[in-house]
Amino acid sequence: MNTKAFYSISYGLYIISSKLDAKINAQIANTVFQVCSEPPIIAVALNRKNYTHEFITRSGVFAVSILSQDTPLSFIGDFGFKSGRDTDKFKNVNYRVGQTGAPIVLDNALAFIEAKVINHLDVVTHTIFVGGVVECDVLKDGSPLTYAYYQQVKRGTTPKTAPSYIESKKEVATGMPKYICTICGYIYDPEKGDPDSGIAQGTPFEKLPADWVCPVCGATKDQFEKQN
Amino acid sequence: MNTKAFYSISYGLYIISSKLDAKINAQIANTVFQVCSEPPIIAVALNRKNYTHEFITRSGVFAVSILSQDTPLSFIGDFGFKSGRDTDKFKNVNYRVGQTGAPIVLDNALAFIEAKVINHLDVVTHTIFVGGVVECDVLKDGSPLTYAYYQQVKRGTTPKTAPSYIESKKEVATGMPKYICTICGYIYDPEKGDPDSGIAQGTPFEKLPADWVCPVCGATKDQFEKQN
Repeated sequence: MNTKAFYSISYGLYIISSKLDAKINAQIANTVFQVCSEPPIIAVALNRKNYTHEFITRSGVFAVSILSQDTPLSFIGDFGFKSGRDTDKFKNVNYRVGQTGAPIVLDNALAFIEAKVINHLDVVTHTIFVGGVVECDVLKDGSPLTYAYYQQVKRGTTPKTAPSYIESKKEVATGMPKYICTICGYIYDPEKGDPDSGIAQGTPFEKLPADWVCPVCGATKDQFEKQN
Repeated sequence: MNTKAFYSISYGLYIISSKLDAKINAQIANTVFQVCSEPPIIAVALNRKNYTHEFITRSGVFAVSILSQDTPLSFIGDFGFKSGRDTDKFKNVNYRVGQTGAPIVLDNALAFIEAKVINHLDVVTHTIFVGGVVECDVLKDGSPLTYAYYQQVKRGTTPKTAPSYIESKKEVATGMPKYICTICGYIYDPEKGDPDSGIAQGTPFEKLPADWVCPVCGATKDQFEKQN
């Protein structure tokens, strides 16, 4: 069995949000799809360990924000590599409360879909939540962020709880050395720089400002390791 | 509710195949995703009216072939716009029988995944089949065909039984008139021609050979209507 076969399955990237009593939370997911058109029904698969999973299980509602291709890595990092158990993911995020009470993330979103859970299926590590759509709208024009674009162009990484997580292999460095974030696996490539943080192409890791942090998860420079 | 919000959900395009006793069948689907990585589990949502749905329901096995971006429209048309009840979809198609007995389509495929159904969920018009992966492999390098690329670049269309089907609206023509296939909704655009069938850019519909057929569904010229 060569599980590299899974790499060519295509996905988008989405923020899945929910509420529980007075609390709200959200996470990144790539497994959102439409199941029926009449009536409109969507589904999302989430890891059972995730805090948002607990929120949806208990409140029965969720919202999906479809991310735009120009979403900064740091935005994805805040929602995808941190837990709402420890941090307030909505600090500095533009959102509004939807019909279901779930928060709808508006920043970097092309469209949103709000749903009430009508069924679910537990599958080992994950749950597929099936939701009847109660509201949806387009927020702005633009290209959706695909998982392939995120991985290949933005040099993002995959959290360990995602279905598509694979232990990262260290690449052989050519030219200036690359550095890998030991927290989230993001790779700093001097040839690319870190445009989201104003770091020009060709900036070696050693020349990064002392207060530079991982654009994905916010780890500090000393949490990076040189790649061999 | 503005269902245009669904348009920015990202999908790939896949051939889903199955067997029933000595018969084999396959169809096109866009809703394939990985649910778990350990153990590897995938899911696919299929319309309950489809012949392949009946095969999977009764045999409990299916295979997924992940299509390459250079897949000809006619190949998609044969699997997506015809029913195995009426035609042998595997005529002239390169395939092999997998471990489960399901046929694995090899033409235009970057990779395949073979699975046994471990659970399913009926959702109004569709069923989500969840399959434990028994075999998978990469077949060749290349970019996967995304649903967006198929719709926008290849000018494909969506069958009425797909979750993402929307009644097509006639476009206002500019320059040479476009013609729409009344069978599958494919639009012949003279500015694009039909490269898969050797029709050059700039060929008006009227100048197409008499034996030219719709590259998607095989409909003849008289089954096309001029767009206003």
